[in-house]
Amino acid sequence: MKLEHIGIAVKDIEKSNELFAALFDAPHYKIESVASEGVKTSFFQVGASKIELLEATSPDSPIAKFIEKKGEGIHHMAFEVDDIDAEIKRLSERGFNLIHTEAKDGADNKRIAFLHPKSTNGVLIELCQEKA
Amino acid sequence: MKLEHIGIAVKDIEKSNELFAALFDAPHYKIESVASEGVKTSFFQVGASKIELLEATSPDSPIAKFIEKKGEGIHHMAFEVDDIDAEIKRLSERGFNLIHTEAKDGADNKRIAFLHPKSTNGVLIELCQEKA
Repeated sequence: MKLEHIGIAVKDIEKSNELFAALFDAPHYKIESVASEGVKTSFFQVGASKIELLEATSPDSPIAKFIEKKGEGIHHMAFEVDDIDAEIKRLSERGFNLIHTEAKDGADNKRIAFLHPKSTNGVLIELCQEKA
Repeated sequence: MKLEHIGIAVKDIEKSNELFAALFDAPHYKIESVASEGVKTSFFQVGASKIELLEATSPDSPIAKFIEKKGEGIHHMAFEVDDIDAEIKRLSERGFNLIHTEAKDGADNKRIAFLHPKSTNGVLIELCQEKA
Protein backbone atom coordinates (compact mmCIF):
# COMPACT_ATOMS: atom_id res chain seq x y z
CA MET A 1 0.00 0.00 0.00
CA LYS A 2 1.01 3.59 -0.64
CA LEU A 3 -0.53 6.76 0.80
CA GLU A 4 -2.07 8.14 -2.38
CA HIS A 5 -3.89 11.20 -1.06
CA ILE A 6 -5.46 12.98 1.88
CA GLY A 7 -8.97 14.33 1.33
CA ILE A 8 -9.89 17.61 3.02
CA ALA A 9 -13.47 18.86 3.27
CA VAL A 10 -13.72 22.60 2.55
CA LYS A 11 -16.58 25.08 2.29
CA ASP A 12 -15.19 27.25 -0.50
CA ILE A 13 -12.77 25.48 -2.83
CA GLU A 14 -11.61 28.67 -4.58
CA LYS A 15 -10.61 30.27 -1.30
CA SER A 16 -9.02 27.03 -0.09
CA ASN A 17 -7.09 26.63 -3.35
CA GLU A 18 -5.43 29.96 -2.58
CA LEU A 19 -4.76 28.98 1.02
CA PHE A 20 -3.13 25.64 0.15
CA ALA A 21 -1.20 27.16 -2.76
CA ALA A 22 0.30 29.62 -0.23
CA LEU A 23 1.03 26.76 2.18
CA PHE A 24 2.71 24.50 -0.39
CA ASP A 25 4.15 27.41 -2.39
CA ALA A 26 2.67 25.73 -5.51
CA PRO A 27 -0.81 25.85 -7.07
CA HIS A 28 -3.33 23.00 -7.54
CA TYR A 29 -2.78 21.14 -10.80
CA LYS A 30 -6.31 19.90 -11.49
CA ILE A 31 -10.01 20.54 -10.80
CA GLU A 32 -12.52 17.74 -11.24
CA SER A 33 -16.23 17.37 -10.44
CA VAL A 34 -17.72 14.01 -9.46
CA ALA A 35 -21.46 14.44 -10.03
CA SER A 36 -22.38 11.05 -8.51
CA GLU A 37 -20.75 12.10 -5.20
CA GLY A 38 -21.96 15.71 -5.29
CA VAL A 39 -18.43 17.09 -5.04
CA LYS A 40 -15.99 19.38 -6.76
CA THR A 41 -12.37 18.47 -6.12
CA SER A 42 -8.96 20.03 -6.64
CA PHE A 43 -5.57 18.34 -6.38
CA PHE A 44 -2.16 19.42 -5.10
CA GLN A 45 0.98 17.31 -5.51
CA VAL A 46 3.12 17.19 -2.35
CA GLY A 47 6.09 14.87 -2.75
CA ALA A 48 4.79 11.39 -3.63
CA SER A 49 1.28 12.09 -2.30
CA LYS A 50 -1.62 14.32 -3.25
CA ILE A 51 -3.88 16.60 -1.26
CA GLU A 52 -7.49 16.53 -2.53
CA LEU A 53 -9.77 19.39 -1.53
CA LEU A 54 -13.47 18.52 -1.61
CA GLU A 55 -16.34 21.02 -1.78
CA ALA A 56 -19.96 19.86 -1.74
CA THR A 57 -22.01 20.74 -4.81
CA SER A 58 -25.31 19.65 -3.24
CA PRO A 59 -26.66 19.65 0.33
CA ASP A 60 -27.03 15.83 0.15
CA SER A 61 -23.33 15.35 -0.57
CA PRO A 62 -21.39 13.36 2.03
CA ILE A 63 -19.03 16.36 2.22
CA ALA A 64 -21.88 18.74 3.10
CA LYS A 65 -22.98 16.34 5.85
CA PHE A 66 -19.41 15.97 7.14
CA ILE A 67 -18.89 19.75 7.37
CA GLU A 68 -22.27 20.21 9.05
CA LYS A 69 -21.34 17.64 11.70
CA LYS A 70 -17.60 18.18 12.18
CA GLY A 71 -16.65 21.39 10.38
CA GLU A 72 -13.96 21.74 7.72
CA GLY A 73 -10.97 19.44 8.06
CA ILE A 74 -9.39 16.14 7.06
CA HIS A 75 -12.12 13.89 5.67
CA HIS A 76 -10.32 10.71 4.61
CA MET A 77 -7.02 9.15 3.68
CA ALA A 78 -6.59 7.03 0.57
CA PHE A 79 -4.22 4.13 -0.01
CA GLU A 80 -3.28 2.93 -3.45
CA VAL A 81 -3.30 -0.83 -3.91
CA ASP A 82 -2.27 -3.00 -6.85
CA ASP A 83 -5.44 -5.12 -6.84
CA ILE A 84 -8.43 -3.47 -5.19
CA ASP A 85 -10.68 -6.52 -5.58
CA ALA A 86 -8.17 -8.71 -3.75
CA GLU A 87 -7.72 -6.06 -1.02
CA ILE A 88 -11.49 -5.77 -0.49
CA LYS A 89 -11.62 -9.54 -0.07
CA ARG A 90 -8.58 -9.67 2.24
CA LEU A 91 -9.86 -6.85 4.48
CA SER A 92 -13.39 -8.29 4.67
CA GLU A 93 -11.88 -11.59 5.78
CA ARG A 94 -9.80 -9.76 8.41
CA GLY A 95 -13.05 -8.38 9.86
CA PHE A 96 -12.99 -4.83 8.48
CA ASN A 97 -16.35 -3.26 7.73
CA LEU A 98 -16.42 -2.06 4.11
CA ILE A 99 -18.85 0.63 2.95
CA HIS A 100 -18.36 -0.65 -0.61
CA THR A 101 -17.96 -4.39 -0.96
CA GLU A 102 -17.38 -3.85 -4.68
CA ALA A 103 -15.10 -1.18 -6.12
CA LYS A 104 -16.80 1.75 -7.86
CA ASP A 105 -15.66 4.63 -10.06
CA GLY A 106 -14.14 7.63 -8.26
CA ALA A 107 -12.32 10.85 -9.16
CA ASP A 108 -8.87 10.94 -10.78
CA ASN A 109 -9.41 7.90 -13.05
CA LYS A 110 -9.60 5.42 -10.16
CA ARG A 111 -11.64 2.50 -8.90
CA ILE A 112 -12.31 3.07 -5.21
CA ALA A 113 -13.87 1.52 -2.09
CA PHE A 114 -14.27 2.98 1.41
CA LEU A 115 -13.88 1.24 4.75
CA HIS A 116 -16.29 2.21 7.51
CA PRO A 117 -14.58 4.42 10.13
CA LYS A 118 -16.24 2.38 12.90
CA SER A 119 -13.83 -0.46 12.19
CA THR A 120 -10.76 1.78 11.69
CA ASN A 121 -10.40 3.99 14.81
CA GLY A 122 -12.67 6.70 13.46
CA VAL A 123 -10.59 7.15 10.30
CA LEU A 124 -12.41 7.09 6.97
CA ILE A 125 -10.13 5.06 4.68
CA GLU A 126 -10.33 4.80 0.91
CA LEU A 127 -8.69 2.09 -1.15
CA CYS A 128 -7.96 3.09 -4.72
CA GLN A 129 -6.50 1.63 -7.86
CA GLU A 130 -5.65 3.49 -11.05
CA LYS A 131 -7.86 2.34 -13.94
CA ALA A 132 -6.00 0.59 -16.74
CA MET B 1 7.44 19.83 0.95
CA LYS B 2 6.76 16.13 1.32
CA LEU B 3 3.93 14.45 3.22
CA GLU B 4 5.99 12.89 6.01
CA HIS B 5 3.28 11.38 8.18
CA ILE B 6 -0.36 11.36 9.24
CA GLY B 7 -1.01 11.39 12.97
CA ILE B 8 -4.01 9.44 14.29
CA ALA B 9 -5.34 9.86 17.84
CA VAL B 10 -6.23 6.50 19.41
CA LYS B 11 -7.48 5.43 22.83
CA ASP B 12 -5.58 2.14 23.10
CA ILE B 13 -2.36 2.01 21.09
CA GLU B 14 -1.83 -1.75 21.57
CA LYS B 15 -5.26 -2.53 20.14
CA SER B 16 -4.78 0.01 17.35
CA ASN B 17 -1.36 -1.41 16.48
CA GLU B 18 -3.10 -4.72 15.77
CA LEU B 19 -5.82 -3.04 13.76
CA PHE B 20 -3.44 -1.06 11.54
CA ALA B 21 -1.10 -4.03 11.16
CA ALA B 22 -4.08 -5.98 9.78
CA LEU B 23 -4.98 -3.07 7.51
CA PHE B 24 -1.48 -2.57 6.10
CA ASP B 25 -0.59 -6.26 6.31
CA ALA B 26 2.63 -5.19 8.08
CA PRO B 27 3.38 -4.38 11.74
CA HIS B 28 4.51 -1.05 13.27
CA TYR B 29 8.30 -0.67 13.22
CA LYS B 30 8.79 1.60 16.23
CA ILE B 31 7.27 2.74 19.55
CA GLU B 32 8.35 6.02 21.10
CA SER B 33 7.15 8.05 24.08
CA VAL B 34 7.34 11.85 24.10
CA ALA B 35 7.03 12.78 27.79
CA SER B 36 6.85 16.55 27.11
CA GLU B 37 3.74 16.01 24.94
CA GLY B 38 2.17 13.34 27.14
CA VAL B 39 1.98 10.83 24.30
CA LYS B 40 3.04 7.35 23.35
CA THR B 41 3.47 6.90 19.61
CA SER B 42 3.90 4.04 17.17
CA PHE B 43 4.93 4.23 13.52
CA PHE B 44 3.94 2.33 10.38
CA GLN B 45 5.69 2.78 7.04
CA VAL B 46 3.27 3.00 4.09
CA GLY B 47 5.08 3.70 0.85
CA ALA B 48 7.04 6.95 1.21
CA SER B 49 4.93 8.16 4.18
CA LYS B 50 4.40 7.09 7.77
CA ILE B 51 1.31 6.63 9.89
CA GLU B 52 1.86 7.73 13.50
CA LEU B 53 -0.58 6.48 16.13
CA LEU B 54 -0.81 8.67 19.23
CA GLU B 55 -2.13 7.59 22.62
CA ALA B 56 -2.34 10.05 25.53
CA THR B 57 -0.28 9.16 28.59
CA SER B 58 -1.83 11.89 30.74
CA PRO B 59 -5.28 13.51 30.87
CA ASP B 60 -3.68 16.91 30.08
CA SER B 61 -2.18 15.64 26.83
CA PRO B 62 -3.39 17.39 23.65
CA ILE B 63 -4.34 13.92 22.39
CA ALA B 64 -6.58 13.25 25.42
CA LYS B 65 -8.31 16.60 24.82
CA PHE B 66 -8.71 15.91 21.11
CA ILE B 67 -10.32 12.51 21.72
CA GLU B 68 -12.60 13.96 24.39
CA LYS B 69 -13.82 16.61 21.96
CA LYS B 70 -13.82 14.81 18.60
CA GLY B 71 -13.31 11.11 19.27
CA GLU B 72 -10.59 8.93 17.77
CA GLY B 73 -9.45 9.82 14.26
CA ILE B 74 -6.97 11.76 12.15
CA HIS B 75 -5.30 14.36 14.35
CA HIS B 76 -2.77 16.07 12.08
CA MET B 77 -0.73 15.83 8.92
CA ALA B 78 2.98 16.55 8.85
CA PHE B 79 5.06 17.93 6.00
CA GLU B 80 8.80 17.55 5.85
CA VAL B 81 10.73 20.65 4.85
CA ASP B 82 14.41 21.22 4.16
CA ASP B 83 14.70 24.32 6.37
CA ILE B 84 12.04 24.58 9.08
CA ASP B 85 13.21 28.00 10.28
CA ALA B 86 12.88 29.46 6.78
CA GLU B 87 9.43 27.82 6.35
CA ILE B 88 8.18 29.23 9.68
CA LYS B 89 9.30 32.67 8.50
CA ARG B 90 7.78 32.25 5.01
CA LEU B 91 4.42 31.03 6.34
CA SER B 92 4.21 33.73 9.02
CA GLU B 93 4.79 36.33 6.32
CA ARG B 94 2.04 34.73 4.21
CA GLY B 95 -0.37 35.26 7.10
CA PHE B 96 -0.53 31.75 8.56
CA ASN B 97 -1.05 31.52 12.28
CA LEU B 98 1.71 29.39 13.83
CA ILE B 99 1.27 27.67 17.20
CA HIS B 100 5.06 27.51 17.47
CA THR B 101 6.94 30.48 16.07
CA GLU B 102 10.17 28.65 16.86
CA ALA B 103 10.81 24.98 16.06
CA LYS B 104 10.92 22.59 19.03
CA ASP B 105 11.95 18.97 19.55
CA GLY B 106 9.39 16.32 18.54
CA ALA B 107 9.23 12.55 18.16
CA ASP B 108 11.25 10.62 15.59
CA ASN B 109 14.42 12.76 15.85
CA LYS B 110 12.77 15.85 14.38
CA ARG B 111 12.42 19.57 14.93
CA ILE B 112 8.77 20.47 14.57
CA ALA B 113 6.30 23.38 14.53
CA PHE B 114 2.51 23.35 14.27
CA LEU B 115 0.25 25.71 12.35
CA HIS B 116 -3.02 26.67 13.97
CA PRO B 117 -5.98 24.89 12.30
CA LYS B 118 -7.95 28.15 12.33
CA SER B 119 -5.75 29.44 9.50
CA THR B 120 -5.67 26.14 7.57
CA ASN B 121 -9.28 25.04 6.99
CA GLY B 122 -9.56 23.15 10.26
CA VAL B 123 -6.53 20.99 9.48
CA LEU B 124 -3.81 20.76 12.13
CA ILE B 125 -0.55 20.90 10.16
CA GLU B 126 2.91 20.05 11.42
CA LEU B 127 6.13 21.13 9.75
CA CYS B 128 9.07 18.89 10.50
CA GLN B 129 12.74 18.61 9.70
CA GLU B 130 15.02 15.69 10.51
CA LYS B 131 17.69 16.69 13.03
CA ALA B 132 21.25 16.62 11.69
